[in-house]
Amino acid sequence: MGKKLVIIGGDAAGMSAASKIRRIQPEAELIVFEKGRHISYAACGIPYWISGVVEDGGKLEVLTAESARNKRNIDVRLGHEVTRIDIANRVVSVHNHETGDQFDQPFDGLLIATGASATIPPIPGIDKTGVFSLRSLTDGQSIIDYIKDNQVAHATIIGGGYIGLEMAESFRQRNIAVTIVERADQLAATFDKDILESVTEHVLEQGVDLRLNTTVISIESAEKGLQINTTGESIKSDIVLVSSGVGPNSKLASDAGIALGAGRAIRIDEHMETSIPGVYAAGDCAAHKHLVLKEDVWIPLAPTANRGGRIAGENMAGIASCFKGILGTASVKVFDFTIAQTGLTGYQADQSGLFGEIETSMITAGSRAHYYPGSTPVTIKLVVEKSSKRLLGAQMVGRADIAKRLDVLATAITANMTVEDIGMLDLSYAPPIAPVYDPIQVAANVANK
Amino acid sequence: MGKKLVIIGGDAAGMSAASKIRRIQPEAELIVFEKGRHISYAACGIPYWISGVVEDGGKLEVLTAESARNKRNIDVRLGHEVTRIDIANRVVSVHNHETGDQFDQPFDGLLIATGASATIPPIPGIDKTGVFSLRSLTDGQSIIDYIKDNQVAHATIIGGGYIGLEMAESFRQRNIAVTIVERADQLAATFDKDILESVTEHVLEQGVDLRLNTTVISIESAEKGLQINTTGESIKSDIVLVSSGVGPNSKLASDAGIALGAGRAIRIDEHMETSIPGVYAAGDCAAHKHLVLKEDVWIPLAPTANRGGRIAGENMAGIASCFKGILGTASVKVFDFTIAQTGLTGYQADQSGLFGEIETSMITAGSRAHYYPGSTPVTIKLVVEKSSKRLLGAQMVGRADIAKRLDVLATAITANMTVEDIGMLDLSYAPPIAPVYDPIQVAANVANK
Repeated sequence: MGKKLVIIGGDAAGMSAASKIRRIQPEAELIVFEKGRHISYAACGIPYWISGVVEDGGKLEVLTAESARNKRNIDVRLGHEVTRIDIANRVVSVHNHETGDQFDQPFDGLLIATGASATIPPIPGIDKTGVFSLRSLTDGQSIIDYIKDNQVAHATIIGGGYIGLEMAESFRQRNIAVTIVERADQLAATFDKDILESVTEHVLEQGVDLRLNTTVISIESAEKGLQINTTGESIKSDIVLVSSGVGPNSKLASDAGIALGAGRAIRIDEHMETSIPGVYAAGDCAAHKHLVLKEDVWIPLAPTANRGGRIAGENMAGIASCFKGILGTASVKVFDFTIAQTGLTGYQADQSGLFGEIETSMITAGSRAHYYPGSTPVTIKLVVEKSSKRLLGAQMVGRADIAKRLDVLATAITANMTVEDIGMLDLSYAPPIAPVYDPIQVAANVANK
Repeated sequence: MGKKLVIIGGDAAGMSAASKIRRIQPEAELIVFEKGRHISYAACGIPYWISGVVEDGGKLEVLTAESARNKRNIDVRLGHEVTRIDIANRVVSVHNHETGDQFDQPFDGLLIATGASATIPPIPGIDKTGVFSLRSLTDGQSIIDYIKDNQVAHATIIGGGYIGLEMAESFRQRNIAVTIVERADQLAATFDKDILESVTEHVLEQGVDLRLNTTVISIESAEKGLQINTTGESIKSDIVLVSSGVGPNSKLASDAGIALGAGRAIRIDEHMETSIPGVYAAGDCAAHKHLVLKEDVWIPLAPTANRGGRIAGENMAGIASCFKGILGTASVKVFDFTIAQTGLTGYQADQSGLFGEIETSMITAGSRAHYYPGSTPVTIKLVVEKSSKRLLGAQMVGRADIAKRLDVLATAITANMTVEDIGMLDLSYAPPIAPVYDPIQVAANVANK
């Protein structure tokens, strides 16, 4: 008989692994325990469902438990929460939320794909009705229902990161006034402040009330709705979205004696294996090697979960493949702008101590030939090791969809290219598509000076 | 006193070189002879000027002779044609078209940047009024004037390559009916036929009458306009555009004993130097090293001219820099579609004899998350060496602006990446921007199977 393979968590990483295992080993005994009611849902799409841009929330379910069972022959158990991993006896304890049953499931190979959760700051009143966080389809449905059932004219978003920005757009699309309260002195804190100038202005133009350098102290019930007390003026609001951070769901693993790493996420090797042989981790609960830093980081993003899940599945099914690492490449639409980044910021490069003197440079150039209508400015900031001219990181901001331009730089960083190499790349050109020197190359040439 | 540096041709390559030389050597004696009336014009923009998308043709002049003189201190001589290069005596013979004067100009360093010309096939009647080719601003103005002065209701385009396709769009935009006559059995002959299916259909939907496998035999004057006799039915037309090919302007060089190479273009080394020391060539008149084939090819494109001109300028000014090579990366907007390619086709890879067994694969995937509105199909064809899984070439077709996605693959080919490497790249993701597996990675993963 084949090995018993158990997966904890049925989202991107878990189901990618399960699908891969099933393809390699059609006969393997394979169970996925998912504590929630959905598997493989597109969490990143939820802001667009709330906004109404995506009309049918059902479309966000990439795969239902039913079709996983019927079409992929994967035994998915919804409402089943794994409460304990017993390494010594190679069993997991499972709680069936529907029946209340508790049972032990033995395993030979185990994948922990428990994801991440919104971090709820310990603010008095944060548990009041009308205060939400956003992670699951259920969270999304709750917000949609709340907006429908209450006269929501104003939303306060705590935290101006990716989700905060996407939700600001989402609320504005529903004609709900928005205040963003952000502790730092800028939006999207993983970016450098200087490159965000145009997009921050754009956010303000969209009618978003932006409170930087501001911390929420407490949330009180008001006569109508909620009152959010901050280190600045207090805010009257009908709904509050907490998007001030996420943390890895790694407690189940650490309670079992599995080693944690960066960001208290589960430590894994290049085969996605944890400190315990035969026990793997993938997705938002795991730390991954950064290709430039050559050390583990915790940057939970969907593409990493999908790719990492596949690699974990291959290894669990006996194929020794490697996950090479990540660059933290990320992009987000902010109203009419896109912001995107990959690799290190100048600060991170400096702090790492891995490189010589670090240089950064920033340019703005047109997305198309200067004479062709619809050219929009693209701003690019490059982080370069001065002595070697090697590219270590890039940030890009533009009104156009610039993210695939950033991907050229992500590819160049992966290949250890210098800015001279990038300046000499043979990139596509046509007046409606790019200037004869693409902004990427303008940036590289300036950085090479 | 410094060296005398002479440049023949004031377009992209020549002026890139001149500007570079001037920056490195502010005091150098530097003359640019341009036989035409314009320097540094955006030839690729002319179809959009004729269509009216670019309203002001003056915008296509990237740099005027006047501002080259005044702002960059470059001695540009318009209407000056170099008629002979005397290698032994290090002089060029110059004919001043305005005054009729003929004079000799000595040089220490020389750059030949004479570009390319439309190849006019030897068809009886090809010299009739109403038959045009398209290369210079003057050509563009002639076509615009002809359309204005004559009732042009129908245009025949001989040749369905890049310029033919751009001009089909241009004429249609002016509500002129279009027939394309193409000798081959497909449009855009540098692409594989199978990937062009959707875009060919699109061209037909735009009302273009497409005559494949058809050759023009003669052009006659008709009662009104012209009659184009072909191997199929003859066509009545008011204007004819000949876009059936281009050839390098290399005769001046070969007459001087300078070696030619691929496509009868001027042979150069990595410093852009010809077979004669101190004599350089750049731009459309020169052959360049192909990064995958590791041999010279003649693929005349604007980015190569700009980059190559700069490198030539550096070397002429005493800085020994290298031009690494090209991939033949090219893109063209075809009505609402973009087609783009880089590296080798499967046929080219096979023919080269450089590789083991070649595999090609083609996929179509959405440009955005499947649930996000406005996702459009992107078709990608990859050419891979089977044994090494190394990517050798890529073609891409899509209704969206897909060319910067192609650039990721151009970068990957430059870095000798395998399709496995590409499948594992950390690329940007957000529902409005890309699916969690970008079409690039879907293509790479399929090619890796």
